[in-house]
Amino acid sequence: MKRKLYAVIMAGGKGTRFWPLSTAERPKQLLKLLSAKSLVQETAERVAPLFGRKNTVIVTVDEQHAAIRKELPRLPRANFLIEPQGNNTAPCIGLAAVELAARDPDAIMAVLPADHWVSDGRRFAQALKESVLFTERENVLITVGIRPTYPETGYGYILKGKKAARGNAGDIYRVAGFAEKPRAKKALQLMRRGALWNSGIFVWRAATILESIRRYAPAVARGVERIQEIARGRRLATLPPKDAAAFRREYRKMPNISIDYAVLEKAGSEGRVAALEADFGWSDVGNWNALHRMLPKDAGGNAGVGRRLAFRSKNCLAYTDKRMIAMLGMENTVVVDTPDAVLVADMRRSQEVKDLLEELKRRGYKKYAVR
Amino acid sequence: MKRKLYAVIMAGGKGTRFWPLSTAERPKQLLKLLSAKSLVQETAERVAPLFGRKNTVIVTVDEQHAAIRKELPRLPRANFLIEPQGNNTAPCIGLAAVELAARDPDAIMAVLPADHWVSDGRRFAQALKESVLFTERENVLITVGIRPTYPETGYGYILKGKKAARGNAGDIYRVAGFAEKPRAKKALQLMRRGALWNSGIFVWRAATILESIRRYAPAVARGVERIQEIARGRRLATLPPKDAAAFRREYRKMPNISIDYAVLEKAGSEGRVAALEADFGWSDVGNWNALHRMLPKDAGGNAGVGRRLAFRSKNCLAYTDKRMIAMLGMENTVVVDTPDAVLVADMRRSQEVKDLLEELKRRGYKKYAVR
Repeated sequence: MKRKLYAVIMAGGKGTRFWPLSTAERPKQLLKLLSAKSLVQETAERVAPLFGRKNTVIVTVDEQHAAIRKELPRLPRANFLIEPQGNNTAPCIGLAAVELAARDPDAIMAVLPADHWVSDGRRFAQALKESVLFTERENVLITVGIRPTYPETGYGYILKGKKAARGNAGDIYRVAGFAEKPRAKKALQLMRRGALWNSGIFVWRAATILESIRRYAPAVARGVERIQEIARGRRLATLPPKDAAAFRREYRKMPNISIDYAVLEKAGSEGRVAALEADFGWSDVGNWNALHRMLPKDAGGNAGVGRRLAFRSKNCLAYTDKRMIAMLGMENTVVVDTPDAVLVADMRRSQEVKDLLEELKRRGYKKYAVR
Repeated sequence: MKRKLYAVIMAGGKGTRFWPLSTAERPKQLLKLLSAKSLVQETAERVAPLFGRKNTVIVTVDEQHAAIRKELPRLPRANFLIEPQGNNTAPCIGLAAVELAARDPDAIMAVLPADHWVSDGRRFAQALKESVLFTERENVLITVGIRPTYPETGYGYILKGKKAARGNAGDIYRVAGFAEKPRAKKALQLMRRGALWNSGIFVWRAATILESIRRYAPAVARGVERIQEIARGRRLATLPPKDAAAFRREYRKMPNISIDYAVLEKAGSEGRVAALEADFGWSDVGNWNALHRMLPKDAGGNAGVGRRLAFRSKNCLAYTDKRMIAMLGMENTVVVDTPDAVLVADMRRSQEVKDLLEELKRRGYKKYAVR
């Protein structure tokens, strides 16, 4: 695609939901959950043919910088933007937009979480291309929506309005509104009404998202503008120490808020957001249950990695590095074996792994808890 | 008690049911399941005050000899009788009887499995003493029966006949018959009719059990007599090499059969067996479920050894050496972590661990399978 197109990969997440496989030192995007490559590597390789390595920018945090660069050794050093702390997606995207608008005032950016999964790369590429074309034609914010395959309660939903364009990868709709993570009954209703999963993948002009931040999120905009003043058009990754320190100071002061909440919900109600209805085998791989859904399974519905035996067991997931995992008479159970800890959980309660970690912390098992 | 009294501890069992904690090299009697001592140590120390170390004899197998001696360093070397292969209890007891009858023609022997648990040592001692007194008065075979506390399907049952004597540790009854491991409904009936668990603890004269073997189990008797001829009154553990080899050859030829089946059932039907109805907190600790029943539990019914967290979980058992075991939303589940393997099983199906091991073997995971 054209030179002014950039991919922004957000790779600062902690991913406690895959504990004990994921830890503070080994966040989800570094895990090889579904292939021989880490999720962040998969994401970078998915966008490289579309945007080129020179135009692929990573936003990550201090603690993960070294590990992420090791995963992506062929990306230019200047393309790693480092947050001094994770501030959720609005500041992160604002930061990337500052960088890209300085590189090219016409820059169009595709924003992608580092730790999602896409099974149909061809349709994914087509969806991004068609989103870019629509952004060039109409200067709106595009969010990529996913046609639901089941009533997931762990995702937010996008309510479709009028159709705005037809496409091969999926039609584009005006966004009528957003729905937060619903309860089971509501999720079914949303799915039936044609609502889409909110994937967290966005396409827009850098200038347009900066303008939208100014309009809808003044608290975020203040930080963004100060960083813009500090950078004065230079690349953020290579600022001289004094300016870098100033940038970090400003970033720390920014509010912790998502782009959906800070900008998209409000912009949507003013008709400035469109959604491409995509279908490229997407998952946010949000927890063990989601992972089990995507892995190849035996006749009993059992899946896993490493030496394992699911004996007289159904719908189980076993992850092991060295040791044999032997299950007997288990159902819907995930077993994860690491050098430090063994997790045995009801897979349908995978969302509660974060509560388990809180409890570990409370009991003084700091070594095992993530932060 | 008197000099002619001997304890015979049968310590040759394999105990696959505690896999992966128990293995071929680490059979159940060597495990520290319920205290800081191994089960065989506990058993030896339980009988030492009654019989003395000089009169405590261990019967074990080649593979376990070194490990068992290490557990019991204070027993005389001549008190370790080594089976060249495990042949079940009838040959094992015949062998011990040959040894003890040679030491003392009036020898009375208490036979005890090495891997059982007794929580009330005082009542246990009393039960053995009263059994010995009854054996001296009436020359019968005594089997120690346990008053059931629930309808266990994993034990054989003893059907009580007429009361033969009153005792402090428990009354003694003529044995009317034996029932094999029953199904659930039958177990309840047996318990209601006052039947006793067959503990596998016996008291009798060495001469009497030898005579009974001759009478009821001629195939076993042949081997016993040949060994008697080879030994010619000498201690089995210190026979010169040529005689030791001959003894081993004969032992290998003996049939694999239990003392219950070979002798007691038949002797019982001829009125030659009595049962003491005991109640000393006994368990054969037959599997993970039995172990869970005996361990101290938290308010949620969870028990275990090592670093563990049973979070939003009920009636679980966790055994770990080094790693943390974290459970989430589990019920009736046993998790055992060892350096080689992790077992996760429905505790109510603990009896099926042996099938799991067969399956492991079938799949070529020989390293993990027992044998």
